Amino acid sequence: MRDQHLYWLPFLAQDVPAELTDPIQVARFELDLALPQLAPELQVYLAPDADADEGFSILRNDNGVTISGGPRGILYGAYKLLMALAAGESLPRSHSQQPKYALRMINCWDNADGDIERGYSGRSLFFESGRFDYDPIRLRQLGRLMASVGLNVLCINNVNVRNPAHRLIEDWLPELADVAAIFRPFGVKLMVSIDYSQPMRHGVTTADPLDPQVQAWWNRQCEVVYQAIPDLAGFLVKADSEHRPGPFTYGRNHAEGANMLARALKPHGGKLIWRCFVYNCQQDWRDAVTDRPMAAYQHYVYLDGQFDDNVILQVKNGPFDFQVREPVSPTLLAMPKTNLAIEWQLAQEYTGHQIDIYAMMGMWQEVMADLGSNTVMAMAAVSNLGNDDCITGHPFAAVNLFGYGLLAWNPDEADPESIARTWAKLTYRFGQADEDTLVNLLLESRGAYEKYTAPLGICWMVVPHEHYGPSPDGYEYQAWGTYHRANRDAIGIDRTASGTGYAEQYPAALRDRYSNLSTCPDELKLWFHRLRYDYVMPDGRTLIQRIYDDKFEGYAWVEEAEQKLSSLPLPEADRKLVMDRIARQKRNAREWRDVLNTFFYRLSGVEDARGRKIYD
Amino acid sequence: MRDQHLYWLPFLAQDVPAELTDPIQVARFELDLALPQLAPELQVYLAPDADADEGFSILRNDNGVTISGGPRGILYGAYKLLMALAAGESLPRSHSQQPKYALRMINCWDNADGDIERGYSGRSLFFESGRFDYDPIRLRQLGRLMASVGLNVLCINNVNVRNPAHRLIEDWLPELADVAAIFRPFGVKLMVSIDYSQPMRHGVTTADPLDPQVQAWWNRQCEVVYQAIPDLAGFLVKADSEHRPGPFTYGRNHAEGANMLARALKPHGGKLIWRCFVYNCQQDWRDAVTDRPMAAYQHYVYLDGQFDDNVILQVKNGPFDFQVREPVSPTLLAMPKTNLAIEWQLAQEYTGHQIDIYAMMGMWQEVMADLGSNTVMAMAAVSNLGNDDCITGHPFAAVNLFGYGLLAWNPDEADPESIARTWAKLTYRFGQADEDTLVNLLLESRGAYEKYTAPLGICWMVVPHEHYGPSPDGYEYQAWGTYHRANRDAIGIDRTASGTGYAEQYPAALRDRYSNLSTCPDELKLWFHRLRYDYVMPDGRTLIQRIYDDKFEGYAWVEEAEQKLSSLPLPEADRKLVMDRIARQKRNAREWRDVLNTFFYRLSGVEDARGRKIYD
Repeated sequence: MRDQHLYWLPFLAQDVPAELTDPIQVARFELDLALPQLAPELQVYLAPDADADEGFSILRNDNGVTISGGPRGILYGAYKLLMALAAGESLPRSHSQQPKYALRMINCWDNADGDIERGYSGRSLFFESGRFDYDPIRLRQLGRLMASVGLNVLCINNVNVRNPAHRLIEDWLPELADVAAIFRPFGVKLMVSIDYSQPMRHGVTTADPLDPQVQAWWNRQCEVVYQAIPDLAGFLVKADSEHRPGPFTYGRNHAEGANMLARALKPHGGKLIWRCFVYNCQQDWRDAVTDRPMAAYQHYVYLDGQFDDNVILQVKNGPFDFQVREPVSPTLLAMPKTNLAIEWQLAQEYTGHQIDIYAMMGMWQEVMADLGSNTVMAMAAVSNLGNDDCITGHPFAAVNLFGYGLLAWNPDEADPESIARTWAKLTYRFGQADEDTLVNLLLESRGAYEKYTAPLGICWMVVPHEHYGPSPDGYEYQAWGTYHRANRDAIGIDRTASGTGYAEQYPAALRDRYSNLSTCPDELKLWFHRLRYDYVMPDGRTLIQRIYDDKFEGYAWVEEAEQKLSSLPLPEADRKLVMDRIARQKRNAREWRDVLNTFFYRLSGVEDARGRKIYD
Repeated sequence: MRDQHLYWLPFLAQDVPAELTDPIQVARFELDLALPQLAPELQVYLAPDADADEGFSILRNDNGVTISGGPRGILYGAYKLLMALAAGESLPRSHSQQPKYALRMINCWDNADGDIERGYSGRSLFFESGRFDYDPIRLRQLGRLMASVGLNVLCINNVNVRNPAHRLIEDWLPELADVAAIFRPFGVKLMVSIDYSQPMRHGVTTADPLDPQVQAWWNRQCEVVYQAIPDLAGFLVKADSEHRPGPFTYGRNHAEGANMLARALKPHGGKLIWRCFVYNCQQDWRDAVTDRPMAAYQHYVYLDGQFDDNVILQVKNGPFDFQVREPVSPTLLAMPKTNLAIEWQLAQEYTGHQIDIYAMMGMWQEVMADLGSNTVMAMAAVSNLGNDDCITGHPFAAVNLFGYGLLAWNPDEADPESIARTWAKLTYRFGQADEDTLVNLLLESRGAYEKYTAPLGICWMVVPHEHYGPSPDGYEYQAWGTYHRANRDAIGIDRTASGTGYAEQYPAALRDRYSNLSTCPDELKLWFHRLRYDYVMPDGRTLIQRIYDDKFEGYAWVEEAEQKLSSLPLPEADRKLVMDRIARQKRNAREWRDVLNTFFYRLSGVEDARGRKIYD
């Protein structure tokens, strides 16, 4: 075992043998490996059910426990049982589960050269220097981690498909099939990101989705692909976005573009995942009318009902781009006749680069409360994985992978505290006091990060491109459509009916809640409203004082967190990583605190009511 | 001839043959090539003078013209005569010249991988992919250009010596000698930048300048170097700056560091050029006491008189870093017992990337007026050259190379207008009206650039790292010591005795002129003073109104320049480059105008008195 980290499965300290090819075999192996430590007396029987798929039942009687289900269901049930035993949870005598969503996806943004776009855990687990290059032991470990929390689709290459990654569905198919075979025993199907203009590499003179030559090329290519990998989950596409090619080039809409690909996949049972991250990334900052968060709704909602049944539109959780806090994307609430997937980002692009502690469960809960779990039919998350010794870079970032699996299995049962606590119990087996310390740190971490970074939903005060550390005006005069328009008196953009009208994209209840300053949550007030610094918040503080307070409090939290972490009995490998990262988080938080306080003090001229140090 | 551009020597439309090895041969070749076009009747005789070196005389009598001097003097005299004939200038019957400075240097910041640090004319003329790679025809053309304006030293590699450039004085010596041989007939000597810690690559355990092993290593290495290239001009060193190694590592000062190297060079007649660009590049922006422009003075002035006689301290013209306007570096005025060189930057790092038109003669004149030509004994300039079809990228950037040569030959005779006019006459041979248009554009270009970019000597409102385009707060919270500290009421740093004390580094006359707000030139007011936006300038305008006016006027100049250029009868190759670049300059100027106006409007809340459009 190359990886000294076992994550939330410390009772599985031996690799799954390469010889096992079926989920039931894996389930049996895992049980035989773990039960002697966890419950030496317990007999566990596996009862395959030809009619079942991913669901499972765990039935206990006097003779032991029987797990029944389809092959993948049995594997999920085995992990469920082992984790419950390890965490000291008692299962009821009869316990059945069905996943809420059939597709529970991880999207890796890995490039063929081995770089990971927005990767903070090292380099790619799959590629290096323009070719496949991987350690099958690590991939099996990843398969095990995914299966243990029910994740079942892995897209292994970046949505920005850069040469030579298009070869994945061409001459790299034999190698892709090898990787698919590694993950298959874990119930994980591969997916690949494809380049919309790929036919043009092969003599087709256009990528127009309505051109029969284009359809024919994809039809043929899908036959080749599915011959190599009959259970490929499908294709993932980023089209017409941030300089990617797409149907707009040919005057076609995105339903026409997506359906063409979907029809090529259809005979093989493949899905076409179409990302809705489309906006004008060459906006003039002088343009105060165009409002980037409105773009996806404008591009997609009118097409509701026009997508084929194997198309899934994948929409980011918020309408901007994975900021620390965003309202739910209105597009997700406006396409009842379309298959939708919500996309999260486990990679901490804007949320601390897996240096700063940032547990995402609170965000999921908040967004799902507004969305409702039946609005979407799939989930995807941008991977936070890499080839670092710790696969998520920061050991605590594993809670996001773990929790995301439970969320995608069933968001209605994935509450933040139980995720944090179960993960902590399984991973570290601390005493109660230390476990509480860790769980509380995780649950507080998002709020703390939010406090020391951009205030109250304003977004985009981060260093451009890098996206770590403060640069309050960094995106202000750029082409990305991400402006706060702070001046000496006020900050924010009015996105209600009296402003850009963004709030009108929501159903009435959300529209009213956000549009009304008194009901709009504080944390989103600057998302929806332009406010003067002397605006008095519901708690009686002025906006500027709230900003100052948040910065000081956010930094103080990190200082305290460092103290608390130093007293936790972490295993040595984790301890080193964690303490190194918290020191960097402290420097980051101090920079955010001071730069933003100074920025707002220089603008507003208002002193801190509590006389704390703000540099001038 | 690969290069379709002949620059200011259009009458030399044939390459200097590789067979010529002596400046007198080259002089004869050039005369024989050009005189038939320029003065078919004129007889020109060359009279070598064994006692002379770079000076020359041109004597006219009834039989013709005699040029006398040392070999290099004769070459310079030949170019002088040809350019006078081509420009229609009449030389007096007897004309003698001596260069003011013995060293007239170009510093290339070329890396061995072929990139040029701050290069805007393509890639290196010398290196590619970690090895020598050059076109000898182009190098001879460069030699001719340099010799025609009296430049005599070429340092071919970046002062930031990155692996494998240290090999230049090791196993690359044979190839370096080949390049030296190409330039030798043009009177140009090579110089190389060296890595201060180079002995440590060869088993010496330290680079401490007082360690005898270190001295011994350099002594030996210089013997090897000078055996290969007996006329090498010397070494150029950037030590203890921006993460370069240097004597500070060993608790030694820069006199100890420089003298050690100078002693190794001394027996061979080599010079040691020691750059004084030393400051703390990891400053905390919260630190309002440390003032970066004061650093060089603090590091060097106390060492005056301690440097060996073959050491030359090379000091940038201003105390910051080649900003559009800086006061003369006080270090240059405070070391009367030290050999000094002033360093300019022809590469338009902060002055438009050879996209924007920016003729530097006005800056030279201004700085030299405060400096006095006898204060320094050498000049250096960072190269604006590259392997683009036009060697200076922008055809008009050649005026800076041309003019710099004349400046370094004798700054007392290098006035801006005559440089611009002679260059224009030689290069384009327009009619009078078009020549006037071009000359005026060149002479105005610096003022226009200054108007649309950072105001009144405030510096550093440029996009970090890239250094093209506006980012008013881009350097404000960084570690580079470059702050404007603009808030809602005021901007600038008090650098007088009541502030950081920087102005106290000057002799009394300059100190008083800059410290007194009424005598401080407007263009440097924000360099030396912190001013409120409602401060009333000598011309009656408020500071904020002056800022707004400058932005609008600077942009308007570019719009007009585009019109004027489109009517000039430029040769087609130049026309394409020039019109493409002026369109980009216009976009750049518009961005500067609007971003800075908005930035200051948001801060100050003051409307433009003339009601022009400022975005909010």
